[in-house]
Amino acid sequence: MGLGFVSLIGAGPGDPDLLTVKAARRLASAELVLYDALVPTSVVTLAPRAQRFCVGKRRRRKSLSQLTIHRLMIRGARQGKRVVRLKGGDPFVLGRGGEEALALRAAGIPFEVVPGVTSAIAAPELAGIPVTHRGLSSGFVVVSGHADEAFAPILDAVSPNSMTVIVLMGLSTRSAVTARLIKRGWRSDTPTAIVLDASTDHMRTWVGRLDKLGSARLNDDDGSPGTIVIGDVTSLRSSIAVDSHRALTANAIALGR
Amino acid sequence: MGLGFVSLIGAGPGDPDLLTVKAARRLASAELVLYDALVPTSVVTLAPRAQRFCVGKRRRRKSLSQLTIHRLMIRGARQGKRVVRLKGGDPFVLGRGGEEALALRAAGIPFEVVPGVTSAIAAPELAGIPVTHRGLSSGFVVVSGHADEAFAPILDAVSPNSMTVIVLMGLSTRSAVTARLIKRGWRSDTPTAIVLDASTDHMRTWVGRLDKLGSARLNDDDGSPGTIVIGDVTSLRSSIAVDSHRALTANAIALGR
Repeated sequence: MGLGFVSLIGAGPGDPDLLTVKAARRLASAELVLYDALVPTSVVTLAPRAQRFCVGKRRRRKSLSQLTIHRLMIRGARQGKRVVRLKGGDPFVLGRGGEEALALRAAGIPFEVVPGVTSAIAAPELAGIPVTHRGLSSGFVVVSGHADEAFAPILDAVSPNSMTVIVLMGLSTRSAVTARLIKRGWRSDTPTAIVLDASTDHMRTWVGRLDKLGSARLNDDDGSPGTIVIGDVTSLRSSIAVDSHRALTANAIALGR
Repeated sequence: MGLGFVSLIGAGPGDPDLLTVKAARRLASAELVLYDALVPTSVVTLAPRAQRFCVGKRRRRKSLSQLTIHRLMIRGARQGKRVVRLKGGDPFVLGRGGEEALALRAAGIPFEVVPGVTSAIAAPELAGIPVTHRGLSSGFVVVSGHADEAFAPILDAVSPNSMTVIVLMGLSTRSAVTARLIKRGWRSDTPTAIVLDASTDHMRTWVGRLDKLGSARLNDDDGSPGTIVIGDVTSLRSSIAVDSHRALTANAIALGR
């Protein structure tokens, strides 16, 4: 039996229509799909012919080890299968996709990487917040807020209020993020937003000040993916977002129809 | 005649297969498409029923003013048309998409924003460079290198060698970018790459040191879009990239099949 092939695919922020054309095609022909817990069912079911396994990773729930994920991909390919490794957002943004590519290369498995729409940009965007805007911010930084990651050195490395800061996987560490930024010298009234379940029917947005980020009541059900945006661009939301959507606060309006 | 509708759409890095499913659908039904010069013909022709106008913007060539672009979108929508404003990469990353959204909102035109795959992440990715990687970088910053943008304050705001730096639209200012970073304290031997025409058949990659970024000979034909990546993650390229592709230097290998 010939060697299979692995596609490391970015699933985008959640809406199946925000998959790339290439990702949708790979899913349609996949024989084995290994997907992260944050990838919604509506995306996973685009691979009707495939064996489908959830391999993690969601806060406070068990997930397979990274090494096990590598082994499953490699075993599938050695069985001649078309394997899709389906990761939320983009596979090479804060998601250990680089490690998976290295493991495949080391094992001699042919593979490709299919970029995806990252929630770091799309979540604010769908809430009416451009990550850059003339006169407000001409750059942005993206960092993981996951407790296992060293986010403090990254936050410390950025001059206060110099650009937009986007924190992925930071819902459970947002108090620490706030404390770190304010200690670093960020204005406590820096406009800040949290976008939950971006691009899905459950999308909702909290808007407030940086010093309220830690105490914001989100009703996030301990499982929604969330993107935090910190910086003056957040103030554009009220001028850009158009349609009312699920309200989390009086400010919560989402864009699009 | 009823009011039309405007979709601000990200075209992704160039390959039509890296459009989102939603973007492809909007193009298929568009009646008027206003596209940036960097969007390849293979993407624009996905709108066969539409009037199609190139509205800029390419280095050293004339383009319409931002105000004229706003007027064309608004006029099209007022004529009842399904208008697509097609922008390279993602519409809200360093591309004045926020200004276009504000103009539409101010004119009372219904619109949506469709996120796209940004070259800031996809160009390095397709060259085998993850923008983040455990032990090398747990964050990244994206900045415009365009001569009209204030990139110096953003570069100055990041501690030397603290994270990955990605410069979009910086081919013509790369000497200034290098000088600024080295003056700021970045190591002159920081691994650096330039990815040209990412995701297209003409994709090619230069890899070298930061202090050679300004003098790298690119054969870029004065029009190729280029993405600059600066940081230790660039060194992963030789371990991740798999297939040989168009060689720009002895190191030039691209990923994918």
